[in-house]
Amino acid sequence: MDYRDLPIRDDLRELTPYGAPQIDVPYPLNTNENPYGPPPELVADLARAVTEAATTLNRYPDRDATDLRKDLADYLGHGLTVGNVWAANGSNEILQQILQVFGGPGRSAIGFEPSYSMHRLIALATATEWISGLREGDYTLDAAKAVAAIERHQPDIVFLTSPNNPTGTAMDLDVIRAVVKAADGVGAMVVVDEAYFEFARPGTPSALTLLPEAVPDGKPGRLIVTRTMSKAFAMAGARVGYLAADPAVIDALLLVRLPYHLSALTQAAARTALKHVTALLGTVDAVKAQRDRIVGELTALGLHVVPSDANFVFFGVPGGDQKALWQRVLDHGVLIRDVGIPGMLRVTAGTESETTAFLDALKESLAVLDGES
Amino acid sequence: MDYRDLPIRDDLRELTPYGAPQIDVPYPLNTNENPYGPPPELVADLARAVTEAATTLNRYPDRDATDLRKDLADYLGHGLTVGNVWAANGSNEILQQILQVFGGPGRSAIGFEPSYSMHRLIALATATEWISGLREGDYTLDAAKAVAAIERHQPDIVFLTSPNNPTGTAMDLDVIRAVVKAADGVGAMVVVDEAYFEFARPGTPSALTLLPEAVPDGKPGRLIVTRTMSKAFAMAGARVGYLAADPAVIDALLLVRLPYHLSALTQAAARTALKHVTALLGTVDAVKAQRDRIVGELTALGLHVVPSDANFVFFGVPGGDQKALWQRVLDHGVLIRDVGIPGMLRVTAGTESETTAFLDALKESLAVLDGES
Repeated sequence: MDYRDLPIRDDLRELTPYGAPQIDVPYPLNTNENPYGPPPELVADLARAVTEAATTLNRYPDRDATDLRKDLADYLGHGLTVGNVWAANGSNEILQQILQVFGGPGRSAIGFEPSYSMHRLIALATATEWISGLREGDYTLDAAKAVAAIERHQPDIVFLTSPNNPTGTAMDLDVIRAVVKAADGVGAMVVVDEAYFEFARPGTPSALTLLPEAVPDGKPGRLIVTRTMSKAFAMAGARVGYLAADPAVIDALLLVRLPYHLSALTQAAARTALKHVTALLGTVDAVKAQRDRIVGELTALGLHVVPSDANFVFFGVPGGDQKALWQRVLDHGVLIRDVGIPGMLRVTAGTESETTAFLDALKESLAVLDGES
Repeated sequence: MDYRDLPIRDDLRELTPYGAPQIDVPYPLNTNENPYGPPPELVADLARAVTEAATTLNRYPDRDATDLRKDLADYLGHGLTVGNVWAANGSNEILQQILQVFGGPGRSAIGFEPSYSMHRLIALATATEWISGLREGDYTLDAAKAVAAIERHQPDIVFLTSPNNPTGTAMDLDVIRAVVKAADGVGAMVVVDEAYFEFARPGTPSALTLLPEAVPDGKPGRLIVTRTMSKAFAMAGARVGYLAADPAVIDALLLVRLPYHLSALTQAAARTALKHVTALLGTVDAVKAQRDRIVGELTALGLHVVPSDANFVFFGVPGGDQKALWQRVLDHGVLIRDVGIPGMLRVTAGTESETTAFLDALKESLAVLDGES
């Protein structure tokens, strides 16, 4: 029996489900997870918090997750308060809520590709037309071209990703500012996806700094900055994404959020993690060091390496056959990511030993492939 | 600043966010929660399971929640296996995924009202046209009229709710069978929402029994039965909904499910609860006893009471002013539900003492209102 024999939406028929392979390997460096598990103190605190929450698990959770949103606002700083912040089950659900309210049938969203593929996939699922904007050959975004694309296509939502995934580089604030201005001109919302922001190189400013100025005359601001606890916070398993925006944006999301979307356990776990922010973000420096090590070693090997502000590195495959190299590296027990861009692969920065395993596997694989060619 | 000054979808402009009041009262009998907290053994087990899951919380969860779906299939019985079962963050997310795949722009869904209001609201959010089918004066569904409505409107999805919310009565299997047949005739999916099934009176068959026969010639079955762990399982705070259907239906949902939608904590909590199924479902009998007590006492008071197979009772307000009675009862610290149907109120069956508090508050309120009129 095939699902295509069911009356599914016509525009979903050509879609294939999103799926990074979930393969059990010694070195999983394919989904940009933080390689460091939560510290024991956090696990102990989390057990206490969840036990406390579990005693009233027969009751629905706080529908508005107010305490969690307060804690997230405190973490973000920039003068943000509970009314500026919203949380959901991963940034994917955040993106879906945004697309449901501001996108939908007869509306369009633009993203500059390659970028996070879920922007396009969730646009499709919410019946929002997707417009593929383009990046430069070095994967940066040219402000003038982005502005021209926005003025030409008049989208309802503009997606920026900074640092960009899968390429890794953060965007200059001037580029974001120009896009916000152009978007205001056509009445579009702007979503800056900052999932990897905590890994950015020193001096990289957040789009959060633009929130106060991104306010059209007499209207609520249309800039939304999304974040996640899956990466720097090492909480991918807990599924917590969030956003900062004008409070009116959050009021709008209430129209489509599923009631009680965020479980009492998720709220408790996220709040506990935020109490351990210093320890959690301590792992970020270690990850960045390995990221820089990968950039350095791959550059020394003569590979093309894209500058990275994230916890991963996007690099060119000598000879261009990324499928062959991906498989060779996997044969060494190291799972990296083929994101479908010819000649390129993405690797997550791991612990020092994981990173060593990757670099060794890569060097051996390159030598073998070089010998075969 | 008003969210209506933002470029939200035009068809959402008239919507108001879903929201039962979340008021802190001694007797919350408004959202059909199970009044019994999880037993201490479950809480202890859950702390252990969550602690275990927390140690690898930096990793994404099993995207397909395979172990949980196996456990749910075992609980449901009826020969169902992992491939027949799907789980999500509450049955609301299950319903949203169904509407995203089988509904959407240019498509329609029919429900027979009054019924669970989220069917209509999620249809709207997914840009699916909503068709309001009608129930009889006693809130039952007439099979012939339902079949006629399906043949007239040719919907893409048919929603049935059994036991129905907010009215409480389960549906005869013959009615469901007739609807499934009519839906097959127009190529529609059928969703039977059995959120309250565990509270049904003895001898009430589940729509699960229809899954083997609801198979059109050479095509996958289009019947979907949804359930939740929020009610009988006393896990409203954990947000776990699930469905049983032909495996092809689940393959179709994979097209729109958000990757890693179900957290590692949720999967661990749900699996732990399923290990304590006997203790949890033991509370069901106690709740049903209070439900029957409410039905009996309200009937003895001369009130119009709808027969209930759920953990709540829907009843008529003498004089018809349900807002006044709701407020009077709330003044006694008892929060019940005004679902917006004139002259009717809904009360959740609580513990024995909670139920006593409600009955006392009701009697006193009725006496006062009677004296005023």
